Amino acid sequence: MAEKMKASVLLRQGELEVLEVDWPVPAADQVVVRIAAVGVCGSDVHYFDEGRIGDFVVDGPLILGHEAAGTIVAVGAGVPADRVGERVSIEPQRPCRVCAQCKAGRYNLCPQMEFYATPPIDGAFAEYAVIQADFAHPIPPSLSFEAAALCEPLSVGIWANQKAGTGPGSRVLIAGAGPIGVICAQVARAFGASEVVVSDPAAGRRDVAHRFGATKVFDPTSGAELADDFDVFIDASGAAVAVRSGIRALAPAGRAVLVGMGADEFPLPVARIQARELVVTGVFRYANTWPLAIEFAAAGLVDLDAMVTGRFGLDDVEAAFGAAKDPATIKAIITPGT
Amino acid sequence: MAEKMKASVLLRQGELEVLEVDWPVPAADQVVVRIAAVGVCGSDVHYFDEGRIGDFVVDGPLILGHEAAGTIVAVGAGVPADRVGERVSIEPQRPCRVCAQCKAGRYNLCPQMEFYATPPIDGAFAEYAVIQADFAHPIPPSLSFEAAALCEPLSVGIWANQKAGTGPGSRVLIAGAGPIGVICAQVARAFGASEVVVSDPAAGRRDVAHRFGATKVFDPTSGAELADDFDVFIDASGAAVAVRSGIRALAPAGRAVLVGMGADEFPLPVARIQARELVVTGVFRYANTWPLAIEFAAAGLVDLDAMVTGRFGLDDVEAAFGAAKDPATIKAIITPGT
Amino acid sequence: MAEKMKASVLLRQGELEVLEVDWPVPAADQVVVRIAAVGVCGSDVHYFDEGRIGDFVVDGPLILGHEAAGTIVAVGAGVPADRVGERVSIEPQRPCRVCAQCKAGRYNLCPQMEFYATPPIDGAFAEYAVIQADFAHPIPPSLSFEAAALCEPLSVGIWANQKAGTGPGSRVLIAGAGPIGVICAQVARAFGASEVVVSDPAAGRRDVAHRFGATKVFDPTSGAELADDFDVFIDASGAAVAVRSGIRALAPAGRAVLVGMGADEFPLPVARIQARELVVTGVFRYANTWPLAIEFAAAGLVDLDAMVTGRFGLDDVEAAFGAAKDPATIKAIITPGT
Amino acid sequence: MAEKMKASVLLRQGELEVLEVDWPVPAADQVVVRIAAVGVCGSDVHYFDEGRIGDFVVDGPLILGHEAAGTIVAVGAGVPADRVGERVSIEPQRPCRVCAQCKAGRYNLCPQMEFYATPPIDGAFAEYAVIQADFAHPIPPSLSFEAAALCEPLSVGIWANQKAGTGPGSRVLIAGAGPIGVICAQVARAFGASEVVVSDPAAGRRDVAHRFGATKVFDPTSGAELADDFDVFIDASGAAVAVRSGIRALAPAGRAVLVGMGADEFPLPVARIQARELVVTGVFRYANTWPLAIEFAAAGLVDLDAMVTGRFGLDDVEAAFGAAKDPATIKAIITPGT
Repeated sequence: MAEKMKASVLLRQGELEVLEVDWPVPAADQVVVRIAAVGVCGSDVHYFDEGRIGDFVVDGPLILGHEAAGTIVAVGAGVPADRVGERVSIEPQRPCRVCAQCKAGRYNLCPQMEFYATPPIDGAFAEYAVIQADFAHPIPPSLSFEAAALCEPLSVGIWANQKAGTGPGSRVLIAGAGPIGVICAQVARAFGASEVVVSDPAAGRRDVAHRFGATKVFDPTSGAELADDFDVFIDASGAAVAVRSGIRALAPAGRAVLVGMGADEFPLPVARIQARELVVTGVFRYANTWPLAIEFAAAGLVDLDAMVTGRFGLDDVEAAFGAAKDPATIKAIITPGT
Repeated sequence: MAEKMKASVLLRQGELEVLEVDWPVPAADQVVVRIAAVGVCGSDVHYFDEGRIGDFVVDGPLILGHEAAGTIVAVGAGVPADRVGERVSIEPQRPCRVCAQCKAGRYNLCPQMEFYATPPIDGAFAEYAVIQADFAHPIPPSLSFEAAALCEPLSVGIWANQKAGTGPGSRVLIAGAGPIGVICAQVARAFGASEVVVSDPAAGRRDVAHRFGATKVFDPTSGAELADDFDVFIDASGAAVAVRSGIRALAPAGRAVLVGMGADEFPLPVARIQARELVVTGVFRYANTWPLAIEFAAAGLVDLDAMVTGRFGLDDVEAAFGAAKDPATIKAIITPGT
Repeated sequence: MAEKMKASVLLRQGELEVLEVDWPVPAADQVVVRIAAVGVCGSDVHYFDEGRIGDFVVDGPLILGHEAAGTIVAVGAGVPADRVGERVSIEPQRPCRVCAQCKAGRYNLCPQMEFYATPPIDGAFAEYAVIQADFAHPIPPSLSFEAAALCEPLSVGIWANQKAGTGPGSRVLIAGAGPIGVICAQVARAFGASEVVVSDPAAGRRDVAHRFGATKVFDPTSGAELADDFDVFIDASGAAVAVRSGIRALAPAGRAVLVGMGADEFPLPVARIQARELVVTGVFRYANTWPLAIEFAAAGLVDLDAMVTGRFGLDDVEAAFGAAKDPATIKAIITPGT
Repeated sequence: MAEKMKASVLLRQGELEVLEVDWPVPAADQVVVRIAAVGVCGSDVHYFDEGRIGDFVVDGPLILGHEAAGTIVAVGAGVPADRVGERVSIEPQRPCRVCAQCKAGRYNLCPQMEFYATPPIDGAFAEYAVIQADFAHPIPPSLSFEAAALCEPLSVGIWANQKAGTGPGSRVLIAGAGPIGVICAQVARAFGASEVVVSDPAAGRRDVAHRFGATKVFDPTSGAELADDFDVFIDASGAAVAVRSGIRALAPAGRAVLVGMGADEFPLPVARIQARELVVTGVFRYANTWPLAIEFAAAGLVDLDAMVTGRFGLDDVEAAFGAAKDPATIKAIITPGT
């Protein structure tokens, strides 16, 4: 396994290079996946542009990319050999499995978590990547590798809606019509929500929301008033003003889930949270979502393929990052195998 | 029933007078209670000092007081006559019983709620008051009227701890060692919490907390660091800085319940709420808490009698309000029957 | 209001007669509904055939029928007059609203419950019936009276699935393909279940299940083995053998909800309930389901109109009861207005 | 590590012998514990007497004993060496950590579970035993090894009360005043239950219950009637008649948890489960209970030391089994270090 592979490596802030690097070596409980498709996430672009996200600083070469799918080509000592050849969607995290959070079923909150493309853990903008066998989730033949890669952001949307308690008949408000917002909207519909209003100041993104899950869109710059009887508010914008409006739009006992990353601290409408006994929480990645994500994608309840607006080779990751900033882009995909 | 009674009436901001007024007339589902004891709450003082709380404005004569107990002396047409003579603790709210919130068991969030001493609904600083029969909760002979009156703030503490999910082994942080803070601490212990840290900048109030429920006290002005692994944080201070510190002190998946009234909006540590998937909520009064409050008080799990530091007649409500501002006061009681 | 109306009255076991009786008089919180459609339920047939269900004995004239819809024609003193003319679906129960169960949001468990067509409370096989204003649920113009009447069995299906925790991706097994079974199947799909297997020994009823919600049907007499990894089992058969098989088909932590009425006691697989930590519960009518039922019916998520296989006038209730026993019947409707 | 140790080995049904066997070899994630105390459980006696429990058959030499505590004397390659010397309570199970049940926090339901003293996995009636590092729970100096060993049955009681939703003010009925019954009673009190009635036909065991947690005892052979308004019923008897009586004693929405092992199938009062919407479930061991168990034991909330009525060396396991059948015995302890 001392073979070489190509990888797009972030050498330092703003500097990507395609290098020949060693194959990753699987631990006993891991598999090696030949990567077929990787989605470009805002966090990848952020690491490239800024060299850090919060306390996570890029201080050595790092392979980005954490929305990945491909085919198992090798297995660790403890993994059945017949998994070689399996098409899988990668859940890009490695919890310790022994801490209190892991054993309580909240492994996403494991303090020892190793997560793809979060320094110093390498991600999947590469020909191959390793993952524990049980986090390499088999996919049905009908599911494309691109949709399988996008089971990662789909998992964010599932986790957010689970935390929000979205259910049959829910009235849901979503702020932000980027990829996560529109995925949250589609998931809300799949969870039985009867009304899904997506709010975004950009007309183009409102159009996208209309195509993907929204029953209604709202322009927060229009001066129009939102209703204040939503059961659920999901923020996928990270914008303080959107979060405050969204929380104020909740009915008594409503629930707000903050997904979008924004400022560390900002003012929230505390008196309203008290007077209506609203519940405000946030999500940190996801746990136990992949089986449902694959099922939703395979059943067409969430249309991931239609969200792909551009494909780029390993040599073109920087171009893909540029495309990701274009309002016409919904989702850019890296195809390392090309 | 056209008889007269004495009541302490707030005529306008800052002006209380004892007047002869008509007996309250019970509706078919109500009882008339001769009031034996009423606690003085910060909100009573606030209405007296400011003439308003948020959107609720005193714009006509108003009887304050909502922490009340006494003896049933008359009943409405639909109430069994044999309830006359019963000693009761008053749950001072009247929900509509027919809206979606009421029928879902969240009657405290009823938009039609009528609540004692909230304009324009009269409270209990009077010889008599009316309440629906099922909100006049019978008390055992062993329970004093004063303790029965304080089942109201005890209900706040029970509701807060229920919302917080305080349970066996919980590590609980409480900010603010006023009456609500120390009641929350006692309730947390009764709910099985193994550690209850009460934080307050005033040494005298920390001493009170030590006597009532705290396993440890903390001086937030000391420069010492709080742990950051509490399961539960309950704010009984209303101070933004305390709320932020408390939320930052929570372990992953921790829960914060905001009880103290403060500014309408203030900054919260949103990124931490997300990274640890904390749950932040507030409480608005309480629902279905009285049976447990009476049980806790009767069993001595929460010591309410020891919290009474002063007693005042109907003529001395203003003096009681003054006492309530004295740091040596824990709880002042009005005794209309005297 | 001393006007007369026609009603189909059960005089005693096995003896129905259409009589002229007084209009029902609405209490202050009630409305009078001119009945347009009433579904025939197995319990109506049972009262007619046996004169009793469990402890409820028909010992005086009784109007049967509790799946009803119509138009408000008069209101009690406390109800806004402008509700006259409203098309409504009737939730046929009257809880006391003041007991612990009611105030906790479980009003279906109220010990003082008065329920349509349960001795001695009259039901809706009549030209008019009374119901509290908040239990007369307004329906949209698109909803037929027949579908509105069938919001009652739909509520049973919603309540059962809520108790079962049916949700996105659930694998659901339902025993019994009668009206309740097929409604449960449709609701399970609307709740996001990915697999809904309906088991019934009758081929004709399996065909009906295929048309209404089942993704697969199962013949329990076939000798084939059921999987044992269902998340949810709902019994709509009342048959002990089906209940046992269903419980054994559950995955660890699975949930069984018993809807069908059968013997008072019968053997359950207790060791399996323990070894897999299964949860077994039952449902007693429903609470707070009508808004969702109306929404589901109006949105076409559950197809109620297609379940109507016969219509009968007030004079033909006995014929309708006969039809209800015909395997070709799914749902018979009484149309008192005809 | 090819050293030898003494162990009490069950050679076949009814035949125990103390043998010299190899030390157990720790895997990388395991520790070796020198066993100081092991409780005798009914299941140990059952394997000795019958050679099987359900599907688990003793078909080779087996070391019994699963309620164990001691001191770490060696560690596997992946465990910090400084854990040697630590006093620990053993959680005697080894889940796979990678299946859906494990990752959801329900590791006790892991289909790959390896459990002490369940064929073919050896237990702790031996000088040494191995366990994964994170299932060797450190205990404070104040806790005796005997109490630490009895954290295992205490965990059963905690898990049962957690499943039952026992909480502040709960009214709890427990059937069976054996060791598990009286532990359940003590735990119920520690969880805040206000009333704990323990039912047992044996007067001597009712006396024990009175000493350990029961607020009241009940003789089911007395002909007296139990109330029917309990919130919680926990069966620790395994007797069908007790289970039925207990379920019938529940208030609407009450919860029954079946802990005692009895017949595979027996009749339950299904119509009552439906009419009152009771929840019936069972427990299979426990998950994530040890930290609370140790805390309860250390805080004296549950008195485990007082339950020890006899101590036996490794040579006397058979005598200990005999003692366990003596009504005067509460808990017999094996002390392999003697």
